[in-house]
Amino acid sequence: MDWIAVDWGTSTLRAWGMSADGTVLWSEDSDTGMGGLAPEQFEPALLDLIGPHTSADTAIDVIACGMVGARQGWVEAAYTPVPCEPLGAGLTLAPTRDPRLTFRIIGGLSQAEPADVMRGEETQIAGFQALNPQFDGVVCLPGTHTKWCHVSAGEVVSFQTCMTGDIFAALSANTILRHSVTGEGWDDDAFAAAVGDAVSRPEKLAARLFSLRAQGLLDGLEPGTARASLSGQLIGSELAATRPYWLGQAIAIVGAGKLCQLYATALETLGASATIADGDGMSLKGLAAARTKLAKATS
Amino acid sequence: MDWIAVDWGTSTLRAWGMSADGTVLWSEDSDTGMGGLAPEQFEPALLDLIGPHTSADTAIDVIACGMVGARQGWVEAAYTPVPCEPLGAGLTLAPTRDPRLTFRIIGGLSQAEPADVMRGEETQIAGFQALNPQFDGVVCLPGTHTKWCHVSAGEVVSFQTCMTGDIFAALSANTILRHSVTGEGWDDDAFAAAVGDAVSRPEKLAARLFSLRAQGLLDGLEPGTARASLSGQLIGSELAATRPYWLGQAIAIVGAGKLCQLYATALETLGASATIADGDGMSLKGLAAARTKLAKATS
Repeated sequence: MDWIAVDWGTSTLRAWGMSADGTVLWSEDSDTGMGGLAPEQFEPALLDLIGPHTSADTAIDVIACGMVGARQGWVEAAYTPVPCEPLGAGLTLAPTRDPRLTFRIIGGLSQAEPADVMRGEETQIAGFQALNPQFDGVVCLPGTHTKWCHVSAGEVVSFQTCMTGDIFAALSANTILRHSVTGEGWDDDAFAAAVGDAVSRPEKLAARLFSLRAQGLLDGLEPGTARASLSGQLIGSELAATRPYWLGQAIAIVGAGKLCQLYATALETLGASATIADGDGMSLKGLAAARTKLAKATS
Repeated sequence: MDWIAVDWGTSTLRAWGMSADGTVLWSEDSDTGMGGLAPEQFEPALLDLIGPHTSADTAIDVIACGMVGARQGWVEAAYTPVPCEPLGAGLTLAPTRDPRLTFRIIGGLSQAEPADVMRGEETQIAGFQALNPQFDGVVCLPGTHTKWCHVSAGEVVSFQTCMTGDIFAALSANTILRHSVTGEGWDDDAFAAAVGDAVSRPEKLAARLFSLRAQGLLDGLEPGTARASLSGQLIGSELAATRPYWLGQAIAIVGAGKLCQLYATALETLGASATIADGDGMSLKGLAAARTKLAKATS
């Protein structure tokens, strides 16, 4: 084992043991996300997870990305303003007690106007660039806080966050719509129709949402149809807001399979096509790119 | 005491003892809303509340409005489709055990296309009409689920629900924005600016929300400013969606003081003026109108 790659988000911690030639030797994960940890708990949580793969004389050389570098994380890894390379923020050393351990965190990116931040996605973009060095276009990273990133000449030029996943979860669980969308099933046609409505008349969003509840009461609308329609309305609203990003651009969607597929379908209904890349794979590629960059800088 | 007026919503129960000439003799309220009650619990909850004002030989004649008439309430008081008079749905008798008690519920209104429902607001509209019999325009009833109602020639012609209050509460408590909007203060200028932005470029809503979080991280945006801006964005989005309702119309806002004032301010920034009427007062007037209508029908 040459080094350890770590993706440490709000709710999960993942680690991969890496050989010098980039082979994954082992992987571990746990639910000790940074959201539940105080600063002094990070090091023990990491050592707990990787313990089986280390010994008393192992040097533990770690590169990490994600919310572990937030202000509330292990140590703050500062934002670097765009335009810059996705790994332009460099690496921040975390304070450690175990003398075997060196823990470096990839910094996030920021944008002054409109104000925006990312932390973790820059590593996935770096991974995508390592595989597609000539890419010029927009990288969409769907999730709780979806990022739309204009990438050109090896740099992130600008980006836009839409908190669509966060909003979908809150509306589904914490408003009157919970009665309408909770249940089995999914309706592709309702999703596509809602995307189309949202993009063609975005100003109607506020008037469309309660209608899902009313249709449930009056017409027996199925929960799967209501959920697909809610999802389509919100993703369509996002596509209306980010049109300057994706219109006429090469589009790559990086993330988890099912969510990427939804975004690709939504874009298709608007006549735009996108290629999909696996999010975890891109994180690992990006961490490896950071490792390579570090080795070059220190050699 | 001639009869008892009751407003029974999801989270509260209110009752007023009424004389034959319309004077309020007493009022009581409790937090035994219909949301927490099984069907057999309604009658005891009511008798508990009004007990001090009744005796063994008192006839208890009640007219009620609100969610007590929902499918999950005491008994379902069916919806009547618009266009119709606000009290067009008539009264539904609830099953009772106490022989002293007669309990009648005002039915809600429905609309087939776009699908919509209201329950409780029809009574406030009836109260407003009783005071303003010549009114022709739009009645806006802000709340968890704000109603916009086109009222003409004594009828509700059409209506539109926007679940803006419900969405504001869910976004403020259950998304990343909770870190940005929780705290003291309010910012009138930020509210007005957000209303203007939302109405002039409604398609940008999805892109604006996360910016409040990013401005907090990068620029130290104050929670009072962030909360006012979130409120302005959502109310502005509602005004963009309901423009066909309020544009060029006489506008009356019926509800609780502070929320009505927010809507009036938002409309003012768009050059529309509105008059405000107290929501509780209109409920009581509407219940009295239903009582008068019943007396005429049975005399």
